[in-house]
Amino acid sequence: MNIVIAIDSLKGSLTSMEAGYAIAEGIKKADPTSNITVRPLADGGEGTVEALVSGMNGTLHTVMVTGPLGAPVKCNYGIIEHSKTAIIEMSGAAGITLVPEQKRNPLYTTTYGVGEVIKDAISKKCKRFIVGIGGSATNDGGIGMLQALGYEFLDSTGKQVSFGAIGLSELESISDEHVMPELKDCEFHVACDVTNTICGDHGCSAVFGPQKGATPSMIMQMDKWLSWYAALSREKFPNANPKQAGTGAAGGMGFAFLTFTNAVLESGIKLVLEETKLEDYIKDADIVITGEGRLDGQTAMGKAPVGVARLAKRYNKAVIAFAGSVTKEAIECNQQGIDAFFPILRSIVTLEEAMRPENAKSNLSDTAEQVFRLIHMKEDI
Amino acid sequence: MNIVIAIDSLKGSLTSMEAGYAIAEGIKKADPTSNITVRPLADGGEGTVEALVSGMNGTLHTVMVTGPLGAPVKCNYGIIEHSKTAIIEMSGAAGITLVPEQKRNPLYTTTYGVGEVIKDAISKKCKRFIVGIGGSATNDGGIGMLQALGYEFLDSTGKQVSFGAIGLSELESISDEHVMPELKDCEFHVACDVTNTICGDHGCSAVFGPQKGATPSMIMQMDKWLSWYAALSREKFPNANPKQAGTGAAGGMGFAFLTFTNAVLESGIKLVLEETKLEDYIKDADIVITGEGRLDGQTAMGKAPVGVARLAKRYNKAVIAFAGSVTKEAIECNQQGIDAFFPILRSIVTLEEAMRPENAKSNLSDTAEQVFRLIHMKEDI
Repeated sequence: MNIVIAIDSLKGSLTSMEAGYAIAEGIKKADPTSNITVRPLADGGEGTVEALVSGMNGTLHTVMVTGPLGAPVKCNYGIIEHSKTAIIEMSGAAGITLVPEQKRNPLYTTTYGVGEVIKDAISKKCKRFIVGIGGSATNDGGIGMLQALGYEFLDSTGKQVSFGAIGLSELESISDEHVMPELKDCEFHVACDVTNTICGDHGCSAVFGPQKGATPSMIMQMDKWLSWYAALSREKFPNANPKQAGTGAAGGMGFAFLTFTNAVLESGIKLVLEETKLEDYIKDADIVITGEGRLDGQTAMGKAPVGVARLAKRYNKAVIAFAGSVTKEAIECNQQGIDAFFPILRSIVTLEEAMRPENAKSNLSDTAEQVFRLIHMKEDI
Repeated sequence: MNIVIAIDSLKGSLTSMEAGYAIAEGIKKADPTSNITVRPLADGGEGTVEALVSGMNGTLHTVMVTGPLGAPVKCNYGIIEHSKTAIIEMSGAAGITLVPEQKRNPLYTTTYGVGEVIKDAISKKCKRFIVGIGGSATNDGGIGMLQALGYEFLDSTGKQVSFGAIGLSELESISDEHVMPELKDCEFHVACDVTNTICGDHGCSAVFGPQKGATPSMIMQMDKWLSWYAALSREKFPNANPKQAGTGAAGGMGFAFLTFTNAVLESGIKLVLEETKLEDYIKDADIVITGEGRLDGQTAMGKAPVGVARLAKRYNKAVIAFAGSVTKEAIECNQQGIDAFFPILRSIVTLEEAMRPENAKSNLSDTAEQVFRLIHMKEDI
């Protein structure tokens, strides 16, 4: 029996590959003859670099960059050598978790570090980029990143504007005179699961501003500045389209990528599935296994496990999911291609005990073993 | 698909039949065409009266009897009318939980109430008795019960001896002159899962005395008195055999039944399986479902679910178990006929939340639904 496993990480407990191997161990106990392939899975958010690096023979790189508050931070990213692809999570260089709660203020937080990570990858000959842009602390329209790559966002005196959304209020002109020459040969696949635009009632300031520390008056100001930035950009790049869905992702980062680089926005799970070529593996599978930390109504709306399930169903494959826990609403996943799902809890424990990696591994393995005993039992029924 | 469900109660949460119906509900969601039979299951201990009464169209009776300390207690027992069978749990009339911890002293606790329950059932025309004798507070050799049925255990002055093991120390003679005449037409099927004898190093005083409140010196005394009681009994009933396995069950109750009534000792689960005629149902089943509150190493040693599994395997039936929780050692159940088992926990909860009946029902149902989705999925694999 051919089995393909692609399970999202159990956040705070097991990585995607660790979870996959734990399941494989349980299946092997139930059927030592089964042929099992473990593939990495992620949704473009936290865990994407880890999953793709460890699941695709990538290498992990660490670079010191400018953090969201200006102070240096260490950022990890991955490179998959054979395809010269860099895997970057924006949150590693400009993430909200890098900013203590009382210091969260999008007027001053910058995406400059994200540009520095890209620059570092370019220096290592990368030409393809997979960038997850979830969890940002910023609302600077991506100009920090663009500045690091050589774009000039100048004020009335001809100096680069300040870091943060406040810089947009100083903006008078944009220049691409000193952009890194390699940038034009780079392609960016941006994992983006939001449809917000850069400005307006559903723009990034209004929708995501509050969670980044913006007050109502700041939101109004930033929205106006982003609108001005979009207009200026359009003078230089007539194809710039601030009304495009996703331009408002990560505080306008979507707009920056689309307007100033060769970029496409794609759903995170779609991007990861393509990158890992999961379809090729699924074609030859008898059963496809997926899952994540918690299977719930959100999962059914299209998170990573449902992405896997939908792909598997194109080939009419049986799909089973394992999860750290499941909610009542997880039942909706049965309509989205997950034929059956199993929480892995074995007894009453605390969340801390359940998340301890050795426990999570053992629970995954034990659950998979019984599920595959059941699958093999079917021959007797 | 024909499915037979016989699951033990989830103690403190769901009765056997409630658990069975919850599973049936989940299976019906996965396959509305399935043909499901829910049968009661118990092991001769707590829950046996409830399971057999509710699962076999019995009636529940309540009778006031002498409790283990002499004060009256209300005791429930069941009658299955068509076979004139009474189902009695000894612990309802002489159980350890009826005695506050500081009052536990087997010198004074009596089985008299058990005899009164039997008498009540005889007055209602019962001739067959299923008696679970687990959880007793007594070590009186069963003489209390026998006194209630008309046997006389007399002291040197010709008076009935005192209640409790202390009465055995006063014992001079035994008379059956005033025994209820109906008793000779009664047969007792005693659920007994221990092999202890009435006296000696592995006798009931030595092994179970401590948990009933006996001190080491009391244990020595009681053992001597039981020995004397057994010898006297043998004078009257030459077939009395104090060395027979099980005579030490429930403080010598095993000996009392075997010597003074028409009784057989049988394993609790065997008795229940016979009484419920589970074998007849299993013969026509495609899948047999069992389970209990906690599946563990003890289960594998032969508790109720494994009793069901072994019976099912005589007919090569597939067996699935559901449990409130499972331990690592539950894996041994796979060698005892349980093809696959599934704990029903869905998320991190407290024990109290997990045991709330509505939660336990919903978890059983949801787990069964996914398991049967998997079973029906097999057609696609």
